[in-house]
Amino acid sequence: MSLTDSAVSSPQGLSRRSMLTAGLVAPAAAALTVSAGGAAEAAPRFGGPQGETRRITMYAEELPGGQYGYGLAPGEASVPGPVLEMWEGDTLEIELVNTTDRTLSIHPHGVNYTVESDGSPMNDSATAPGESRTYTWSTQAPSKGPGGLWMPGSAGYWHYHDHALGTAHGTEGVRKGLYGALVVRRKGDVLPDRQHTVVFNDMTINNRSAPDVPVLEANLGERVEFIAIGHGDMYHTFHVHAHRWANNRTGYLEGPKDPSQVIDNRDLNPGDSFGFQVVAGAGVGPGAWMYHCHVQFHSDGGMAGVFLVRNADGSMPDGAQDALDRYHQHGGGGH
Amino acid sequence: MSLTDSAVSSPQGLSRRSMLTAGLVAPAAAALTVSAGGAAEAAPRFGGPQGETRRITMYAEELPGGQYGYGLAPGEASVPGPVLEMWEGDTLEIELVNTTDRTLSIHPHGVNYTVESDGSPMNDSATAPGESRTYTWSTQAPSKGPGGLWMPGSAGYWHYHDHALGTAHGTEGVRKGLYGALVVRRKGDVLPDRQHTVVFNDMTINNRSAPDVPVLEANLGERVEFIAIGHGDMYHTFHVHAHRWANNRTGYLEGPKDPSQVIDNRDLNPGDSFGFQVVAGAGVGPGAWMYHCHVQFHSDGGMAGVFLVRNADGSMPDGAQDALDRYHQHGGGGH
Amino acid sequence: MSLTDSAVSSPQGLSRRSMLTAGLVAPAAAALTVSAGGAAEAAPRFGGPQGETRRITMYAEELPGGQYGYGLAPGEASVPGPVLEMWEGDTLEIELVNTTDRTLSIHPHGVNYTVESDGSPMNDSATAPGESRTYTWSTQAPSKGPGGLWMPGSAGYWHYHDHALGTAHGTEGVRKGLYGALVVRRKGDVLPDRQHTVVFNDMTINNRSAPDVPVLEANLGERVEFIAIGHGDMYHTFHVHAHRWANNRTGYLEGPKDPSQVIDNRDLNPGDSFGFQVVAGAGVGPGAWMYHCHVQFHSDGGMAGVFLVRNADGSMPDGAQDALDRYHQHGGGGH
Repeated sequence: MSLTDSAVSSPQGLSRRSMLTAGLVAPAAAALTVSAGGAAEAAPRFGGPQGETRRITMYAEELPGGQYGYGLAPGEASVPGPVLEMWEGDTLEIELVNTTDRTLSIHPHGVNYTVESDGSPMNDSATAPGESRTYTWSTQAPSKGPGGLWMPGSAGYWHYHDHALGTAHGTEGVRKGLYGALVVRRKGDVLPDRQHTVVFNDMTINNRSAPDVPVLEANLGERVEFIAIGHGDMYHTFHVHAHRWANNRTGYLEGPKDPSQVIDNRDLNPGDSFGFQVVAGAGVGPGAWMYHCHVQFHSDGGMAGVFLVRNADGSMPDGAQDALDRYHQHGGGGH
Repeated sequence: MSLTDSAVSSPQGLSRRSMLTAGLVAPAAAALTVSAGGAAEAAPRFGGPQGETRRITMYAEELPGGQYGYGLAPGEASVPGPVLEMWEGDTLEIELVNTTDRTLSIHPHGVNYTVESDGSPMNDSATAPGESRTYTWSTQAPSKGPGGLWMPGSAGYWHYHDHALGTAHGTEGVRKGLYGALVVRRKGDVLPDRQHTVVFNDMTINNRSAPDVPVLEANLGERVEFIAIGHGDMYHTFHVHAHRWANNRTGYLEGPKDPSQVIDNRDLNPGDSFGFQVVAGAGVGPGAWMYHCHVQFHSDGGMAGVFLVRNADGSMPDGAQDALDRYHQHGGGGH
Repeated sequence: MSLTDSAVSSPQGLSRRSMLTAGLVAPAAAALTVSAGGAAEAAPRFGGPQGETRRITMYAEELPGGQYGYGLAPGEASVPGPVLEMWEGDTLEIELVNTTDRTLSIHPHGVNYTVESDGSPMNDSATAPGESRTYTWSTQAPSKGPGGLWMPGSAGYWHYHDHALGTAHGTEGVRKGLYGALVVRRKGDVLPDRQHTVVFNDMTINNRSAPDVPVLEANLGERVEFIAIGHGDMYHTFHVHAHRWANNRTGYLEGPKDPSQVIDNRDLNPGDSFGFQVVAGAGVGPGAWMYHCHVQFHSDGGMAGVFLVRNADGSMPDGAQDALDRYHQHGGGGH
């Protein structure tokens, strides 16, 4: 149940992060503590920056059904692409290998890059069919600038996407799957036990519709990180049943006086992203919890999935299989 | 002018909260203080948690015109339903009596509940026609979790709604009026003198269109709580004239260094909710102040109402009746 | 390169602020410091409140092509109108001269005003053709109210707009250009070196479409203030390439524990506004950086412009002219 294992084992929405986080992630603590909500909860694990430059290769590939994806090895492209992770202070060099017959690129949110790494046709930084191009992303911690102003750091739940396929804004590339999550962590941030990427892209979740939307899994008490990203042409709101988070950088409170609103529903519109961690089932217990767009005709139209919180030992909670069966029969919406 | 009185006396958007807050609300202070804005303002009143379990009965009923509503007694269902209030630490057991011939439920945002109280058909927790079912909601204060992380508490301006009538997401139930406000307060939070619920539900406010949208009333200097909720299929922005609030949990600032943006217009999209308190007329005086969706064709199309700030003694301010007449003639929009 | 010079020299989206800020703005510091991002950056300049009442005249005028605009002198109306600036504690009296043959008004967000200055037909405070009317706006600092509550101050990135032309909500006036930015600063707030107003108004930016959207300019290391305003009937998200800000009142952090999310993309819906300052090119270098609505069919349809970060000496960076040429050829979108 280590972070690396869970990240690699899930077919959808999870990263092959071992290339990026090897050495960063401590083994999952076996000890369990008890949270205020009464759920047994794994002790949190913390990490810190490498402060170094890492280099990876990303492959842009055609997928069955006219989709496109990014992957960290040939033949492994997925929708969404792998979660890329950095610590504030890190630099990431991405060699993008374009195995398709279309011009495309990779464009990040939140990090630093020069015009050569912009990924836009306007800055002549896309990648032609069969070609490769290196994109460099750097990051920084918050800093006290001149005059005592604090300049924002890079930490955040960001994302990356194509900015060239089909239009100068990558509209066709994004629609067909060329997107993924980018997480920049701050020294001291807690690491999750599980991680799920949820992309609201037009009327789909991760380019799928209910009942084929990914079932996101966790065991009771695990610290689960959600990364929510909006794309396409439509407005959405992201809602999870029975779990909530602070509407700020991390989803946790900085302390008892943190003024952040606590929410369980948030606007998720094109180009936007946010993330948070919850303790699976804390205060509410295990079960099949729905997550969905709260725009009514979107949820009815297929933008609904299941966050399955298993028992702490990984077994199926009472009634959860019935709920999954109902979800798969009715698609989570309809009439 | 006590909280209980005002809550019971208003026909629309206000709760019959006496069942929930009896014993919590001190009599309204007679003493007036003077705010920075120059308006005479009632001294704030504070409350605290009961830490106990209360039990109420909610009746889901059909209403004239094909609407549905929730009420705290038979024959008293309204749109929106009553404001339900809790303090962090409280538990609320709701026996839902379904007096209609349709399957429906009650689903809350923000609070804790098990799958049995989820209210969704997926979790087989809706209520059949003529049947009753008990839904249990619990809450908690913020807590320092393992590793020094602060876990969010339950306090917030939340809401409840049907999750079963018509579709698996309660789309028909919500459209026809099965929704209401749920307020969870934190120890030390200030209590309002007046309370108004404003629900943007498709092209309506509380399922009404101008000029039939509720006139929300207060006297100069009263502490007025707005609870804003979004529902349906459309995007909206909520705007009040001449009053503003901090975009955080309470609408107040935690102190002079609170970074919250101060706003008078906020996105209010399906499933979303927020709340805040203002001192009626502070710095601007009494009068007929418009509140409306700021999407232009929505306000022109009827999503506009009046926040009537009377003089401190409850009398009508100069010119306010003329303004109300103009509102009722022209519907607050049109050409 | 003083604030006053830059404000006056730009034809679009910049204010003729000299009438408002004369005496407030110190000469631009010649000394350069080095930011964490490595860009040479001008030392920040701070200001403070006047605490006085100032009086200006605004002219509402018809413009070529059926547009309307506000201006600070006859024949100088623009879209957007001039940036109006206040410090918390200031009062502004605006004599609006309506030189058109339509009834119109001026309605502010964020500041205090009585019903006589509301600008709405409902409050009978619009201005008939050929007439003049004085609108008074006042402001206040945050204050510790009764019970230890902190009441929000007026500081913020606000806006003003017509509330009477065409409909009771000024829908035609807003569509045709009667809008502008209103900035209320707090004592100690840093002053920008450059200032740009970006209004997403239906499918336009400042009532223009790519490739005719304004090129926003700055030199490397300058402190650039963006004021973003939403209007009209549609939803939008505002994105700038390679620059980011804290999602709070100022865009800076209050300190290392400020929980604000750092973003580079934000919802910008009708009636909403926000602002922030960035150090041009910090950590990313000079170049032609795109800003655009991230709703894909909006950016493809013309809601895209260029934020041109010149070299520190004002010269054109390598490749930037080519990027501008590509932008002007292809309009920043299309297929």
